[in-house]
Amino acid sequence: MTYLIENIARHIADGSLSASDHIETCLAAIDDKNGQGQNTFIETYHDRARAEADAVDTARKNGWILPPFAGVSLSIKDLFDVAGEVTKAGSILLADSPPANADATIIARLRQAGFILIGRTNMTEFAFSGLGMNAHYGNPLSPYDRATGRVSGGSSSGSAVSVSDKMAAATIGSDTGGSTRAPASYCGIVGLKPSTARMPSDGVFPLSPSFDAAGPMGNSVACVSIIDSIIAGGSGIRETAFAAAGLRLAIPDGYLMEDLDTDIAAAFDAAIDRLHGAGVHVQKIRLDALEAMRPSNNPKSIVSAEAYAVHRHWLDSDHSEKYDPFIGRRLRGGADILAADYIDMFEKRDAVCHAIKMQTRGFDALMLPTTPGIAPAIADMPTIEKQLAMNARSLRNTAISNYLDRPTITIPCHQHGTAPVGLSLMGSRHHDRRLLAIAEGLEAIIRG
Amino acid sequence: MTYLIENIARHIADGSLSASDHIETCLAAIDDKNGQGQNTFIETYHDRARAEADAVDTARKNGWILPPFAGVSLSIKDLFDVAGEVTKAGSILLADSPPANADATIIARLRQAGFILIGRTNMTEFAFSGLGMNAHYGNPLSPYDRATGRVSGGSSSGSAVSVSDKMAAATIGSDTGGSTRAPASYCGIVGLKPSTARMPSDGVFPLSPSFDAAGPMGNSVACVSIIDSIIAGGSGIRETAFAAAGLRLAIPDGYLMEDLDTDIAAAFDAAIDRLHGAGVHVQKIRLDALEAMRPSNNPKSIVSAEAYAVHRHWLDSDHSEKYDPFIGRRLRGGADILAADYIDMFEKRDAVCHAIKMQTRGFDALMLPTTPGIAPAIADMPTIEKQLAMNARSLRNTAISNYLDRPTITIPCHQHGTAPVGLSLMGSRHHDRRLLAIAEGLEAIIRG
Repeated sequence: MTYLIENIARHIADGSLSASDHIETCLAAIDDKNGQGQNTFIETYHDRARAEADAVDTARKNGWILPPFAGVSLSIKDLFDVAGEVTKAGSILLADSPPANADATIIARLRQAGFILIGRTNMTEFAFSGLGMNAHYGNPLSPYDRATGRVSGGSSSGSAVSVSDKMAAATIGSDTGGSTRAPASYCGIVGLKPSTARMPSDGVFPLSPSFDAAGPMGNSVACVSIIDSIIAGGSGIRETAFAAAGLRLAIPDGYLMEDLDTDIAAAFDAAIDRLHGAGVHVQKIRLDALEAMRPSNNPKSIVSAEAYAVHRHWLDSDHSEKYDPFIGRRLRGGADILAADYIDMFEKRDAVCHAIKMQTRGFDALMLPTTPGIAPAIADMPTIEKQLAMNARSLRNTAISNYLDRPTITIPCHQHGTAPVGLSLMGSRHHDRRLLAIAEGLEAIIRG
Repeated sequence: MTYLIENIARHIADGSLSASDHIETCLAAIDDKNGQGQNTFIETYHDRARAEADAVDTARKNGWILPPFAGVSLSIKDLFDVAGEVTKAGSILLADSPPANADATIIARLRQAGFILIGRTNMTEFAFSGLGMNAHYGNPLSPYDRATGRVSGGSSSGSAVSVSDKMAAATIGSDTGGSTRAPASYCGIVGLKPSTARMPSDGVFPLSPSFDAAGPMGNSVACVSIIDSIIAGGSGIRETAFAAAGLRLAIPDGYLMEDLDTDIAAAFDAAIDRLHGAGVHVQKIRLDALEAMRPSNNPKSIVSAEAYAVHRHWLDSDHSEKYDPFIGRRLRGGADILAADYIDMFEKRDAVCHAIKMQTRGFDALMLPTTPGIAPAIADMPTIEKQLAMNARSLRNTAISNYLDRPTITIPCHQHGTAPVGLSLMGSRHHDRRLLAIAEGLEAIIRG
């Protein structure tokens, strides 16, 4: 059985799979001593997941009406509030915080739809990096080439591995510069960055409120589409696929297509060939406004100003030594940004968004490699400088979508057994559901 | 004939008043050598106003269909774009700027509704002060006690005097901390600060985009209500008055009610007596969140950060000596605000807005004196320090509405021939039209 949430939900509903068996399979994957469970979760909900699975099975046997995804396992990034649980956001700084009073709205919606929370996934401390390494809770490894030991990407590192390693049917991460998509790409799964305003942010530990969006990750476009619908307040539907033939895709020719690993370039080119073969129009365009800006996770950005505003109270306190030095250094980068510069950044951003919108509105989506490289080996990043450089590379292509606040989905396009490669489709701001319908239409072709 | 835009429009439409006669009356008031025309307008549109008036009269005689306010005179603050004209915002810095390409949206809407632009009114340079003095274009005087020479209030100083002195039937100002309401109060007319998001800001020279709102001023609540409707994209209607009896008003007891001029206190108290007599419930409440903050036009605020961001290019340039030193000094106050502090200010503001909303939602409106004092005499403010102190006093009560972004209307409550006193009614955010309906119901009682 593939781990698709529609299938699991259907099997639980028709009695061919018990919720308890499904949950036990996930817990067994987590508890496997030879697996990544230890690094993948900061906390697991063994007891409550088992109790909820029992309740689902009992209710089903009694013929009670159950919500549509009753019994389906879901992992959540450590930055979402769950009533009664401590939200640590991958830190030790918050380990002694009081438990949350209430579920984050998106968590409440997912529970109401029947999902069973299996545990809180590991993440880059405070979500402020794209590699997915965590000095306190370990480094969950990409499923590819485990002998070498490669990062899973971040910041939603544990979320990606929990899905790739079948510890959960799907997961909720968050994305401020690529934090759902880089790990999805490095781990061979699907990940979505929604338009920021669509996603409720209450009960979600912030990194940069102007850029943050909770985002689903899973094994298919449909998995991601269903969860996106639920967390945005919808009814949990997938979209009807657009016909592939005749769709118009644009590749942003320029720095986003430069300096690609050979594995990335080969898989991406092969996907283009398949798309051509299916009657999709693929065209290279030059986005001058992007080329001039090259927006990324730089140290003097809207993100760094807002992240510093969130953290300065702690950075200036006795607890500052509890930060991972790599993260603390990045957070302090926003300390000296002037209000006038911050205001100007929004004005420039609006101008770039407008220019790109005007230039791309005739296309159904933009298409680009999610990351320029495959999952980096941990051994290749022995210093903070190497990590900073690799972090910038990991988020180079993804950060564009946050800067433009355009919904973007990454879909695996590599051949089974080779290094995972993600292909990103970027839609128009607030037209997330249209992007998902397009992605449904292209998924099989992209996967090859 | 009182200068009410409904009356003027009706008389023009039925032929009992020609548009040309109406416009000539306004122009004569402007050109009166013993009047305030010279200080009230930065630029007048004599020729085009006459030509448009002729066109209205010709069209009417021919039986053509005319827009509802065809031929009614309107003055506009110098910060609104008119196609082909230079927007100077009360400065000499922008005197050599290229003419605007297009009308500001609100100007286009007013012209489409038939209003005739009579000229561009004087204002505090760049709208950054509440006294209404202008080092380049003079000081339009309050209609009260002209022998002494009192400021008209600002920043929409000329707008207020153009209406009080019958140079225009109504006017459009803007309000960031009290800039429509302080001058309306000092000049004995009605002025409105709308909720910021309701008003299009394109083609309006900014002071602080998070706080700015274009706002109408005129001789009655109906005048202001009609113009508010048009500039917000509506059809130019007034609201049906709420019945006065049974309305619930709250007076924010605390610093906003302290240190009032005797004229202000007496007129305000008399208005309360009349309201009581009409069956209105008036109750004092304590708004602790406001008392703790005392938000005002202080030098380290959201407004000063945003104003500095707008101006720093010029402040740092060879043109910096073209600023009025009083305004330049205030603008530089935002130079050293940190992005993190600016972000925190919005968070605190949200918390205060929420607390005040919870505490006041059972009332139909808040009520307070628009300004703590009557129009100050120019001779009493010989130094920048005196001006700064009096500016802070002028905007003390009005700035609350901008901080809370709640629509607020000031209505004269003094007796004819005495110093003008404005009584403010503050509604709920984005419920501007409800506030106007309440104001229609209370206007006659407040005026006494």
